[in-house]
Amino acid sequence: MALRARALYDFNSENPGEVSVRENEILTLYSEQDIDGWFEGTNSKGERGLFPASYVEILRNDAASTLNNNSCTENFSKPSAPSFATFSAPTQPQQQQQHTYQQASQGSDDDWDDDWDDSSTVADEPGTVGGRYHDFEGNGPSTYRVSTSSMSRGNAQQAKSSATVSRNLNRFSTFVKSGGEAFVLGEASGFVKDGDKICVVLGQHGPEWQENPYPFACTIDDPTKQTKFKGMKSYISYKLTPTHTQNQVNRRYKHFDWLYARLVEKFPVISVPHIPEKQATGRFEEDFISKRRKGLIWWMNHMTSHPVLARCDVFQHFLTCNSTDEKAWKQGKRKAEKDEMVGANFFLTISPPAAPLDFQEVESKIDGFKTFTKRMDDSAFQLNATVNEFARKQITGFKKEYQKVGLSFRVLSQAFEMDQQAYSTGLNQAISFTGEAYEAIGEYFAEQPRKDLDPIMDLLALYQGHLANYPDIIHVQKGALTKVKESQKHVEEGKMDRAQVEGIDERCNIISCATLAEIQHFHQIRVRDFKAQMQHYLQQQIAFFQKITGKLEETLQKYDDA
Amino acid sequence: MALRARALYDFNSENPGEVSVRENEILTLYSEQDIDGWFEGTNSKGERGLFPASYVEILRNDAASTLNNNSCTENFSKPSAPSFATFSAPTQPQQQQQHTYQQASQGSDDDWDDDWDDSSTVADEPGTVGGRYHDFEGNGPSTYRVSTSSMSRGNAQQAKSSATVSRNLNRFSTFVKSGGEAFVLGEASGFVKDGDKICVVLGQHGPEWQENPYPFACTIDDPTKQTKFKGMKSYISYKLTPTHTQNQVNRRYKHFDWLYARLVEKFPVISVPHIPEKQATGRFEEDFISKRRKGLIWWMNHMTSHPVLARCDVFQHFLTCNSTDEKAWKQGKRKAEKDEMVGANFFLTISPPAAPLDFQEVESKIDGFKTFTKRMDDSAFQLNATVNEFARKQITGFKKEYQKVGLSFRVLSQAFEMDQQAYSTGLNQAISFTGEAYEAIGEYFAEQPRKDLDPIMDLLALYQGHLANYPDIIHVQKGALTKVKESQKHVEEGKMDRAQVEGIDERCNIISCATLAEIQHFHQIRVRDFKAQMQHYLQQQIAFFQKITGKLEETLQKYDDA
Repeated sequence: MALRARALYDFNSENPGEVSVRENEILTLYSEQDIDGWFEGTNSKGERGLFPASYVEILRNDAASTLNNNSCTENFSKPSAPSFATFSAPTQPQQQQQHTYQQASQGSDDDWDDDWDDSSTVADEPGTVGGRYHDFEGNGPSTYRVSTSSMSRGNAQQAKSSATVSRNLNRFSTFVKSGGEAFVLGEASGFVKDGDKICVVLGQHGPEWQENPYPFACTIDDPTKQTKFKGMKSYISYKLTPTHTQNQVNRRYKHFDWLYARLVEKFPVISVPHIPEKQATGRFEEDFISKRRKGLIWWMNHMTSHPVLARCDVFQHFLTCNSTDEKAWKQGKRKAEKDEMVGANFFLTISPPAAPLDFQEVESKIDGFKTFTKRMDDSAFQLNATVNEFARKQITGFKKEYQKVGLSFRVLSQAFEMDQQAYSTGLNQAISFTGEAYEAIGEYFAEQPRKDLDPIMDLLALYQGHLANYPDIIHVQKGALTKVKESQKHVEEGKMDRAQVEGIDERCNIISCATLAEIQHFHQIRVRDFKAQMQHYLQQQIAFFQKITGKLEETLQKYDDA
Repeated sequence: MALRARALYDFNSENPGEVSVRENEILTLYSEQDIDGWFEGTNSKGERGLFPASYVEILRNDAASTLNNNSCTENFSKPSAPSFATFSAPTQPQQQQQHTYQQASQGSDDDWDDDWDDSSTVADEPGTVGGRYHDFEGNGPSTYRVSTSSMSRGNAQQAKSSATVSRNLNRFSTFVKSGGEAFVLGEASGFVKDGDKICVVLGQHGPEWQENPYPFACTIDDPTKQTKFKGMKSYISYKLTPTHTQNQVNRRYKHFDWLYARLVEKFPVISVPHIPEKQATGRFEEDFISKRRKGLIWWMNHMTSHPVLARCDVFQHFLTCNSTDEKAWKQGKRKAEKDEMVGANFFLTISPPAAPLDFQEVESKIDGFKTFTKRMDDSAFQLNATVNEFARKQITGFKKEYQKVGLSFRVLSQAFEMDQQAYSTGLNQAISFTGEAYEAIGEYFAEQPRKDLDPIMDLLALYQGHLANYPDIIHVQKGALTKVKESQKHVEEGKMDRAQVEGIDERCNIISCATLAEIQHFHQIRVRDFKAQMQHYLQQQIAFFQKITGKLEETLQKYDDA
């Protein structure tokens, strides 16, 4: 019998070889082994291709013959306590981590000064924001997330046969990879320093991240072109000035990229804002530099606004370490890469509010948010397309139309100038001026999108990145809830003791608090950002139409003496 | 040997069967007999087809064998005084006129109440402004213009053989048809009443029509649909109220049409403004009625602004005769149709300034004006096309773009409304309002051309009509000047006596004065009209952009409470 899976989310194919799947669509898999985070299979339309492994759940209840003797349902009825215990006490997680860190950072310390960003070719580009998202799903930083247990990819099959009490068989689901499962099952362990404690408090609208008591911002100025190896290599350096230190540091895109990888690794249920996409060609063109700088400013704004991200060590190191102190930089870099409090262990650092949440209410909130993100993603996509097209029309069509009108007026005035009589001179000049005014207005239209529509597109790009992060975050939370339900069932059937269940509940509560706090934060910055951006847009539009009006008023005056 | 002709003006073919000709192009004619004002022939590219007879002059100096024994050059050297005398004393011109008047008015008195306008079919439409111009060239009213002599179409051939001293052999040239030639040759005669006298005075810029001492205007209001024959026939009636009588009269389009025909017939070197074109279908649609009314208002404005047209009897009859007094109307109508002071005789009514003009200077002015009209015609054509396209773009494309933006904002606000938290309600409403505002702005764009671009197109249409009149007017004046040159040559060669030459000079001076006065008037109303229209356009544009700004300012305020 074929191995079947159910799509958990919509996935739209963006590259050759991929197939689109719809939420709840039943898919046929060729193998339960993923290829770098992708499954190969056939969708319900019979289209064959790849889709992200984390977007689907494998269906086991038809006792698929492709599984080893133990199917999921069998294991439910026969939980194996010892193997469960094995998992809750992982051995030497650090060593395992160390290995995968190096993969995650895409190079060793020795490579640090190489241009692994700036000299990258198109082939290893992460592509668009969407592409980045898939990349993060599959390999790279997130491969780390299975490694809080001693289980490695090589012995996954063996592990499955002995430890499937309530363990997800899809080793590549985000719930597993993020460390969410390991944490819920009590497998995470580590020493949490006081300074690392992250508090979730109960606010007016539910769980919230405790506010950053030392809020700060950070400017990004003057991207400058730097060269090294006697001008053989060149790169762009950005000047960062955090308000809490007032010390300027220079950072390159590759530093942002490295930081981003650390953050994604560390925070399973926090939506790390995407950094602007890489670009291989034309990196030093004014437009690109200006566009990337704007993207980095947006990114920085979201980083410093986030109560957890803003305060985390690796970000502070990035913001404050003197660029010229190579030694200090490397030390901080190594420390970040060895950080134990990542993935599953991150949840250990969270202090939830005293009263546990009602899981039913949590589930309903999460479901509501899932619907919200889909709607927002659709509308952001539509708005982005519209705004993009509107900008294009203003730069081309609108400009052309106004300039054609301007030219026609000028041609008329030139014809009129053939009449040399004194009483027509004033009119001829006024019409000529009108022609020039409309040509100028055409230019105004072409220049305007840069001022008002581009910032909207920048905002949408950032939020589209967040929206692409949420399926994974939701997946982690839902995975935890599922574990709670399973454990309740087990305890009713006498297959699990109450203490174990309470531990699972408690840990699920932590994940839920963190997720809801993150969602709350998302809504707050969303309202703040969209309000500010809409106001900015309208102000720019008003200034634009006033500028046109002013030009026309000036033009009209020319007729007074005509 | 082929009959050849030289093009006097550019002619652009507009209909199948016509060929375009360029000024000075040498053409081959199939016959010197025109077909309703058109010659059939071949242009220099070898294209065969029709072109207006009045746009060309037949070339006689190669002693074309197609001519009867007397070629133009032969006649130059052998002027035949008696035959010349024959022409200078036409017999019974009135009778001949009477006959052609009836043709010109397109119907007898008995037909007056028929719906020869309103029930006309597409087939007898005058077509576009350009088409109207050719129509006027060919047949209809202007056929009259040969009839101040006893010569009729039937004996043209015979006349030519006996009277070609300095007579244009093209009986269908405007110079001939307008009566210009007959007048220059002293063939016009009639009794000029004091009230009919038209003075040309020497103004600051040269000859000018004496100003109308009793200037007036006339409003055109409330076009209403009227029916007769128990509703079987319906027509639109316009309410005209001249300021000098303050008595409202009702006139139908056919009355305007009849008046127009009278005016064209009467005034050889006055540019009678074209009435709005006929339209067979959809005559009672709001848009059409409104458009025609606007066209008639423009027309009326040009009529009342013209020192000669405004005062002429037929126009005054049209403006003042009580619509219900059938008898008075018919009387005035018959009187206008029997008017002797038309065509050649019109020139008799003109009193030139005391000092005669310098013909060389006149020729240079006329040439300059000819160049001017061409340039203005080209630029008006271009502006009209641009403005028309600009209006279309605003009604379709611009509207669509702004409305798409509006819709996308609304869709975003709907997505945001899924987040039920209190702090986002204000923003959601504000974004929703922004969406509606942009949809409204889309409508503003669609509505605007009616307010600012349509009036420009109306103005251009009127002026394009005038520009289409000028080749004929220039032709008449140039014809007169040619006669002067010929006569000077003749007198040098002793073939003509000085008194005859002086008479020709005097009459050419009258035509020149009238032509230059008309050109002066044209420039003056042009400067007045274009100034007013450009000011109106800019005022409307300013109001438009202010309206948008106002809407956006209102929208921006919604965010204050958000």
